[in-house]
Amino acid sequence: MSLTIKLHVTTSYLNLNLNTSKNTTKVANFKVKLRTKPIYHCDPLHSVVSNNSAMHASAQPGQPAIRSSLIDPDGGALVDLVVPEGKKASKALEAESLPKVNLTKVDLEWVHVISEGWASPLRGFMREDQYLQSLHFNSLRTQDGSVVNMSLPIVLAIDDETKERIGSSPNVGLLGPNGDLIGILSSIEIYKHNKEERIARTWGSTAPGLPYVEEAITPAGNWLIGGDLEVLEHIKYNDGLDHYRLSPQQLRKEFDRRQADAVFAFQLRNPVHNGHALLMNDTRRRLLEMGYKNPILLLHPLGGFTKPDDVPLDVRMEQHSKVLEDGVLDPETTIVGIFPSPMHYAGPTEVQWHAKARINAGANFYIVGRDPAGMGHPTEKRDLYDPDHGKKVLSMAPGLEKLNILPFRVAAYDNVEKKMAFFDPSRAKDFLFISGTKMRAFAKSGKTLLMVLCVPGDGRFSSTIMRACKQKRHHSNKRFFLPRYQINDKINTRV
Amino acid sequence: MSLTIKLHVTTSYLNLNLNTSKNTTKVANFKVKLRTKPIYHCDPLHSVVSNNSAMHASAQPGQPAIRSSLIDPDGGALVDLVVPEGKKASKALEAESLPKVNLTKVDLEWVHVISEGWASPLRGFMREDQYLQSLHFNSLRTQDGSVVNMSLPIVLAIDDETKERIGSSPNVGLLGPNGDLIGILSSIEIYKHNKEERIARTWGSTAPGLPYVEEAITPAGNWLIGGDLEVLEHIKYNDGLDHYRLSPQQLRKEFDRRQADAVFAFQLRNPVHNGHALLMNDTRRRLLEMGYKNPILLLHPLGGFTKPDDVPLDVRMEQHSKVLEDGVLDPETTIVGIFPSPMHYAGPTEVQWHAKARINAGANFYIVGRDPAGMGHPTEKRDLYDPDHGKKVLSMAPGLEKLNILPFRVAAYDNVEKKMAFFDPSRAKDFLFISGTKMRAFAKSGKTLLMVLCVPGDGRFSSTIMRACKQKRHHSNKRFFLPRYQINDKINTRV
Repeated sequence: MSLTIKLHVTTSYLNLNLNTSKNTTKVANFKVKLRTKPIYHCDPLHSVVSNNSAMHASAQPGQPAIRSSLIDPDGGALVDLVVPEGKKASKALEAESLPKVNLTKVDLEWVHVISEGWASPLRGFMREDQYLQSLHFNSLRTQDGSVVNMSLPIVLAIDDETKERIGSSPNVGLLGPNGDLIGILSSIEIYKHNKEERIARTWGSTAPGLPYVEEAITPAGNWLIGGDLEVLEHIKYNDGLDHYRLSPQQLRKEFDRRQADAVFAFQLRNPVHNGHALLMNDTRRRLLEMGYKNPILLLHPLGGFTKPDDVPLDVRMEQHSKVLEDGVLDPETTIVGIFPSPMHYAGPTEVQWHAKARINAGANFYIVGRDPAGMGHPTEKRDLYDPDHGKKVLSMAPGLEKLNILPFRVAAYDNVEKKMAFFDPSRAKDFLFISGTKMRAFAKSGKTLLMVLCVPGDGRFSSTIMRACKQKRHHSNKRFFLPRYQINDKINTRV
Repeated sequence: MSLTIKLHVTTSYLNLNLNTSKNTTKVANFKVKLRTKPIYHCDPLHSVVSNNSAMHASAQPGQPAIRSSLIDPDGGALVDLVVPEGKKASKALEAESLPKVNLTKVDLEWVHVISEGWASPLRGFMREDQYLQSLHFNSLRTQDGSVVNMSLPIVLAIDDETKERIGSSPNVGLLGPNGDLIGILSSIEIYKHNKEERIARTWGSTAPGLPYVEEAITPAGNWLIGGDLEVLEHIKYNDGLDHYRLSPQQLRKEFDRRQADAVFAFQLRNPVHNGHALLMNDTRRRLLEMGYKNPILLLHPLGGFTKPDDVPLDVRMEQHSKVLEDGVLDPETTIVGIFPSPMHYAGPTEVQWHAKARINAGANFYIVGRDPAGMGHPTEKRDLYDPDHGKKVLSMAPGLEKLNILPFRVAAYDNVEKKMAFFDPSRAKDFLFISGTKMRAFAKSGKTLLMVLCVPGDGRFSSTIMRACKQKRHHSNKRFFLPRYQINDKINTRV
């Protein structure tokens, strides 16, 4: 039995029609009012936790600002490359006087990542020795001989003209995509950008159509420039979501403030669906069983570059806010923040980066999904990666030994038990899957339809509704038909 | 000034004509008798060292068979997978009864490599967890948590039909290319052979024309089979060179017998040229200066698969023998052995394997050349790898910390000093290079000509002569024009 969900829209109301494709067992129709104002403007740190007195216990004056009791940042100390207030003026003057490198939007996302210490102990764009270690070993050896994970090359490309303009200057100024002065890269090293080798070793493929490659590597210059980074200000995007862009330092502080004794991170680039929610709640339950008293969930959507047919960040943030508002996840034990990294879609190589960055943010548990950071092969009819390789590689990755890896348990709607449950392969036909991929496929089909994002619970088939309709969008000089999403009021009903 | 060397052949004699292309300064003509019988049948362990009494000191009964005082094998103990004499009959019977896997010539070379412990602590073809670690991290974590280097996936591919034939059998028998029973692979694991990913991550390129890929991966099956290996006999090739195929165990024994206090390995797949010889002698000098009393050179040509335009193994062994016979390298402090591995031409990835295998053979110093295991890009007009990446990657590779890496110093003929000398870039024009690549290029041009392989010394331009002439050969269903080589008597003269 397969179950189809059809959701018809009527202007600002919609009809929700649930039926099974072959043997119709139940039909439910609902009218739901569309919500027009976003709810994601709420403060992720304070608004929802004000009733929990315990959470304020360690925020007293005199307490250490950033405790690292749960897990040390890679390299021992969290990197912070924002120029102190008192030195800003002189640094800006210095930057102005230097040869300039223009940053793309993705470059700026990496500046954001590096400057806040997500990539600790990395203190700038990689020089060649770091690039080679990352490319060949997915790790870096630190000065004390220990190894930290570093699976993605974090590099800055420049073209011949820029290289010539830099000449023999040891330092360069960095300009943002809008021409504003961002910071300085000092003691620079310029080396060859062998794109073919970088792509092959990072993605395990050189097939045309890899999203990050098309966005950020193919159009880039033939040189890489490494050096020590300093930024004049914290990177802001002024898109109404900056308050969700909590730095590793802010997150660590918040975990301390809430007196977390375990932090489990969940990376995602799709809306939260029913399976995710069950998994996150179940993980918390397991951690409590293991003896932890106050496990905190870091719900951590990726906020940098994503491929054009992924759900846009503002829609996702709105959906995550709904999930908390609805109580699907407990706001008192959940922190939602934006992870500023761009997405590579580099499967087993990238999942290490996703995990490593969360160590720096203070998470000591990491939930790894099926086919993390994976996608369809751009030219062949298969997944680019073996869906099991991500969790296998993560479990063996150098430098991640201190992180507790929690493998994803697949959840789906159990048609027998009439609730979300972990998948039991011995009765596979009883389970209904509604994945993010399936949702996007519906949306891409161009029909005006609505998706329901299910809530774990006893029979409730509810929560946030997303409208997806065919919409023209431009990306990299190509015209796509892409879904447009709209978050609607919750519906609560039983199927 | 560029200097061309033309060597004309007259039946069994040849004229040697040295002149500078633009400003002819000197012309030398020689007649040299061609040698018809090979000299490589000499015993690499005993014939040339009989005068050195010290070398026999530790060969007394009661001495430990394999001392590991210089450097421990990876994993602590040298792997030896040859079935003991007493169990051979029963193992052969067992192997006969099992589903069979047919080995190619290259597969058999890997069986050779694994069974003698070159890849210690690997005890068979890789299972998936080892394959993934090798592919992503170029290293394996051992049971005690330590890391050993393992940069190349050592895997055995099977096709759908073989997989089906194996069914649920936990063990398989291995058949050599001639149908002879080689051994057993037990507790097998069969997993997907994603060729694109394997190639991309190993070579940093998926360009068509990579020699090992065309020989051993493209035609291979879509599954990999890992498991524990046992071989019924030491692998032999019966090509008159088996006595040069010294196992790591034999080499370690010999280093002990010679009371080596340092062993420096030199990997090569070309004839020894003047620069190599100077470098090897200079390395010995440096080791003596460092206080070592008896440094031994392991001159270690690769004996497995090479690309069709490389100089064939028998010619190379004959040339190496000549180099020792001529005293260019001191036979008393040099051991020549064949390294049975096939060649990947995978640059920085492969050089780690070359170094790691020599640790297992007892070498604690490794000389790394410019562009090790490199080649021209198969489809673009550039080197496949940055020539400096090999030594950089090697110096940072996980699991190779215990090995002393000696970077190659480039040597050439100094036209001012009239002798071989280390290259001085400040007076580059004074130096004459005759590389293996240039030699092959001459040979490929199809002209009947001879190459001189120079000997370091004060003005001597001598030693082994190789004839290269155009010759048709078949390889992988393609017809190539390939050089044929012939070793001739030495000539000694001054230019």
